[in-house]
Amino acid sequence: MAVESSLSSLGEFGLIDQIRARFSQPVAPELGIGDDAALLSPAPGCQTLVSTDLLAESVHFDLGFGPAHLLGRKSLAVNLSDIASMGAIPRWFFLSLAIPAGFPLATIEGLLDGLAEQAASHNCILAGGDTCGSKSGLVISVTIMGEQRPELILKRGGALLDDQVWVSGMLGDSALGLKLLMEGKRLGQSDDYLMQRQLDPTPRCTLGQKLAEAGLVNAMIDISDGLLADLGHIGEQSGCGAEIQLGQLPLSPAFQAYAANQHAFPWQLAVCGGEDYELCFTAPAVNHQAILQLAKTAGIPVTVVGKVTDSRHVQAMLPDGTIFKPSASGYTHF
Amino acid sequence: MAVESSLSSLGEFGLIDQIRARFSQPVAPELGIGDDAALLSPAPGCQTLVSTDLLAESVHFDLGFGPAHLLGRKSLAVNLSDIASMGAIPRWFFLSLAIPAGFPLATIEGLLDGLAEQAASHNCILAGGDTCGSKSGLVISVTIMGEQRPELILKRGGALLDDQVWVSGMLGDSALGLKLLMEGKRLGQSDDYLMQRQLDPTPRCTLGQKLAEAGLVNAMIDISDGLLADLGHIGEQSGCGAEIQLGQLPLSPAFQAYAANQHAFPWQLAVCGGEDYELCFTAPAVNHQAILQLAKTAGIPVTVVGKVTDSRHVQAMLPDGTIFKPSASGYTHF
Repeated sequence: MAVESSLSSLGEFGLIDQIRARFSQPVAPELGIGDDAALLSPAPGCQTLVSTDLLAESVHFDLGFGPAHLLGRKSLAVNLSDIASMGAIPRWFFLSLAIPAGFPLATIEGLLDGLAEQAASHNCILAGGDTCGSKSGLVISVTIMGEQRPELILKRGGALLDDQVWVSGMLGDSALGLKLLMEGKRLGQSDDYLMQRQLDPTPRCTLGQKLAEAGLVNAMIDISDGLLADLGHIGEQSGCGAEIQLGQLPLSPAFQAYAANQHAFPWQLAVCGGEDYELCFTAPAVNHQAILQLAKTAGIPVTVVGKVTDSRHVQAMLPDGTIFKPSASGYTHF
Repeated sequence: MAVESSLSSLGEFGLIDQIRARFSQPVAPELGIGDDAALLSPAPGCQTLVSTDLLAESVHFDLGFGPAHLLGRKSLAVNLSDIASMGAIPRWFFLSLAIPAGFPLATIEGLLDGLAEQAASHNCILAGGDTCGSKSGLVISVTIMGEQRPELILKRGGALLDDQVWVSGMLGDSALGLKLLMEGKRLGQSDDYLMQRQLDPTPRCTLGQKLAEAGLVNAMIDISDGLLADLGHIGEQSGCGAEIQLGQLPLSPAFQAYAANQHAFPWQLAVCGGEDYELCFTAPAVNHQAILQLAKTAGIPVTVVGKVTDSRHVQAMLPDGTIFKPSASGYTHF
């Protein structure tokens, strides 16, 4: 590898300069990159929300699956989704990178470009971080902070009996996209839409915030481990269960076209695949029309897929009325 | 490796339970581990300080150098030190772990015990985090949040001409301890004190906070990359330089005993070695006695090692009056 294309020629402070240059800060924190800690002044009357996600090469991402630019976008998107799912407004983020020696500078530049693009489109400010070497793969750690008035924040524990269960967007596209990537498909061939949903998920920040501020919703979570697993978390925290009608799931034309060619319908991908980064929320039936109207304004489709029950489990019903048995619900890390 | 001693038998949620069990929270955040984000209510009138550090196996630590318990203590200590260096009060931290498959459970338990011990002794509350697998080494990412009234926060940029330059504790012990560990020495043999300073550094939280609240200090930083490099950061941010008298450096008896057996005095270890996690601060000479008194109350020795100058460089003078030429100032990551 040529010296000028690898990170070692840049050095730590050169890298920090590269990072700083990409994140022009419309409203800078009082003291950002360059002191021991960032200084932030939370808005009066707001609570601070903090979430953190760590992405490790070969575990969460494969640099061969798509451009580094999309990996940068996704690294922030998964964190933005956590803030969106509580109905809050993203404000600041902190980026830590562990980078192997000799890592291609172009890949880091692409990653930073994608991060900066995602940050700019959500007015989320890079306020600090850490960079270091890695003896093995690339590791990306993002900590995000958001704000919201305490009475508006949506938690997992607020679901009530007979609430309707809603999801935003389409389910299963990301998991199907990952399956295609793992089978060797790449962007630029057919099925780009599905692979894009895996490589470049869209955090539902505006929708989450509007739902919270309208006071229409009782509980909310983002779907990162699959609808069944994440709705299960709402159930656990709310002391209830839910029944899902798989026939009502929002499925994209691309997903349906794939499904039509399969021996058995891939329900597993749709509700257990994960990485949808859509919102799942529960709300009283009386709010149905208001929610549809609000989502229409936000430009995001939302669909009722079931209801909250007094059981202690999440159950999914197949279109023929029998119970769906997932082979595993959600992703296992270890 | 026996199944029951590895992490795979525990699973992600088992690991999260292990973490939760260790961190009894005297003042819990409104909503901690178990929702999409933690909810924190900053104290009225305070600014929030945030710092993050990423520690990667074989880069920042070697699991063979000491017990995992000390690595846990250090993982939080280096972050506490960043909060201390701004004169603030540590409040919350977020822990992300990327753990290789089959990693010994006992090592993770030791790590968590050490983290919990350090957290408890600084009233710093675990408010969230992330756990995932790693294809390579263990990665520990900690994000810490502190608070302080804005007018008391000490930054790098406040140093004034003719300020005295102070350091806390003793310098060089940690770097010398690392050298001994890399040469094959281990705890339990001689030189335990030096290796302990490397493996279990003490963040100067109380001293930093007291100095800030007393209004005696103009600029402060913690010494993580060596005195010359970190004092250089104060100089850059303050638009000044400094002159250090190496003959005035606080050196421990163990360091001096080692130095006495060397061909040349190891000044390099003392001012360029790094990982001291002591405080370096500048203050008007008129505050000299008050600072000594305050440090005595805090039980931490402090020493004047030089003064702020109107040059643009940090210069270190050897005891014979000649200029010290470091072979490299500070640690290089890439």
